[in-house]
Amino acid sequence: IACHDVDTVFEAIRNLRVRGAPAIGVAAAYGLITGLGDHENEHEFDLVSQRAAKLRVARPTAVNLHWAINRMMGCAERLRNEGSRNFLNALESEAQEIHREDIAACQAIGEAGLPVVRANPRLITHCNAGALAVSGIGTALAPIYLAHHEGIAVHVYVSETRPLLQGSRLTAWELERAGVPMTLVTDNMPATLMARGRVDGVIVGTDRVAANGDVANKIGTLNLAILCRYYGLPFYVACPLSTLDPDTASGNDIEIEQRADSEVTHFGGQASAPVGVNVFNPAFDITPADLVTAIITDKGILHAPYDASIAALTGK
Amino acid sequence: IACHDVDTVFEAIRNLRVRGAPAIGVAAAYGLITGLGDHENEHEFDLVSQRAAKLRVARPTAVNLHWAINRMMGCAERLRNEGSRNFLNALESEAQEIHREDIAACQAIGEAGLPVVRANPRLITHCNAGALAVSGIGTALAPIYLAHHEGIAVHVYVSETRPLLQGSRLTAWELERAGVPMTLVTDNMPATLMARGRVDGVIVGTDRVAANGDVANKIGTLNLAILCRYYGLPFYVACPLSTLDPDTASGNDIEIEQRADSEVTHFGGQASAPVGVNVFNPAFDITPADLVTAIITDKGILHAPYDASIAALTGK
Repeated sequence: IACHDVDTVFEAIRNLRVRGAPAIGVAAAYGLITGLGDHENEHEFDLVSQRAAKLRVARPTAVNLHWAINRMMGCAERLRNEGSRNFLNALESEAQEIHREDIAACQAIGEAGLPVVRANPRLITHCNAGALAVSGIGTALAPIYLAHHEGIAVHVYVSETRPLLQGSRLTAWELERAGVPMTLVTDNMPATLMARGRVDGVIVGTDRVAANGDVANKIGTLNLAILCRYYGLPFYVACPLSTLDPDTASGNDIEIEQRADSEVTHFGGQASAPVGVNVFNPAFDITPADLVTAIITDKGILHAPYDASIAALTGK
Repeated sequence: IACHDVDTVFEAIRNLRVRGAPAIGVAAAYGLITGLGDHENEHEFDLVSQRAAKLRVARPTAVNLHWAINRMMGCAERLRNEGSRNFLNALESEAQEIHREDIAACQAIGEAGLPVVRANPRLITHCNAGALAVSGIGTALAPIYLAHHEGIAVHVYVSETRPLLQGSRLTAWELERAGVPMTLVTDNMPATLMARGRVDGVIVGTDRVAANGDVANKIGTLNLAILCRYYGLPFYVACPLSTLDPDTASGNDIEIEQRADSEVTHFGGQASAPVGVNVFNPAFDITPADLVTAIITDKGILHAPYDASIAALTGK
């Protein structure tokens, strides 16, 4: 999908044509400037500010959206009195830098998480935190890709992730394509996999980590964390530094996006429930920090107490 | 679906056109004799025995199938030397009696479970253990229907139950039709419902309860039982006496049906995953007895230690 104006970028984010917290951030950065400069306009700063206000509300939960927009607007503020060409060139460079950093962060997350996958090669993952969620090789999937390249016998159990099936549509697709051994299951099956001793743990991405280490991620993540606690398995979260949000005290302060009933009552455009039935459809849940074994970042692995380890890393 | 011969009944059970452990038992009882007597045949006992052997393997997990066939064959053994008309009349009466008893058992389960629903009016249920699974008003849904009739403010959270969506296709349908307040969620959402304090517990049916109280039920049930343990909520199982299987020592001895990959990779004939992807698709899971708060039967409520309470009730 080629996006040549902010409306298309907004629509792409809102309707999940681009999804995954890091990818949303990169898309928003480019979205602030795409198409600007094609016309004669000396009020670029105002235009970029309006775009920022618009894009900020495209989706509420992923903090990378705000992080990328804040960074771009910081750059814009500094250069608002420059000429139009310099202003736009600088913003374009900043967006490209955010994009490059995301690619590098994926690689660094992969390297930081490699020992985790070596010790736990049979992992459940949920939703999609792979190459399709970022600009590089992924967050949760990054150490799995690197481990597979190193010849470690990884096996990924992919939960399909209703309602939108990011597991079966995205994660299964990219793992198959990369030749990583995998098994697709419905979201009802991880407990049985654990009961039968078929998995060593869970690894997922995240849309936002609060200052206390509470983790917002795709609905169903909390479920997996509780199963890990019950079966004594490790529960890992992987993300770039930009997903840590020291300004949000705890998971209680994270807005959880509610999405359309039709995502639950329909499946591939086909009704799978009675018309008009009452639905609850939160897109994310909050996993309390005490269920998180470690947070694998591009700057190393964080452990509890997370308030301290996150503050140390983010400088807040 | 009208079934006039054993092949149609076999196909209906195998392909879930009739499902729900009690309903499968009743269908099998009638399936042993349907169409017999339409022709002149003095070897009805042999025909019924062949049908029994065929129907026994239609599905492996629900014990009611074997229970009903055993009961019918006991009757057949007693009457094998009677004339054809007496023999078939007696078997037809036995099947009708199994059918009537199932209707009565539902009512009795409902009455036994009524105090449970009164104390826990906001319940999650999984799969379908309602009127569509039995001959009467259901097993897990029976006390909910009675409570609703009594004016208790019940609210049922229905998990959709992938892969076959018995929750959204059957339970949501019958609760809506009965006017019982309900909310449909995906299988990823019960943890969030519990974390937010929106539910008082879980109630499900079962396909087989082992002598030690281990419970076989629709895949995803174990998951809910673990969530209840984590959140300190009660986890109830409801079933007729015919679902208790004192001849099976524990859940380890219960065969778990594996079903086709296409149930996971497709929905309504439409692919939702890459072609040829590796799939794990067990139809049931085993919830260990220690996660079960109580088993609500037509003969009263059973508590731990289940080996003793089940033995006392079944006389084994």
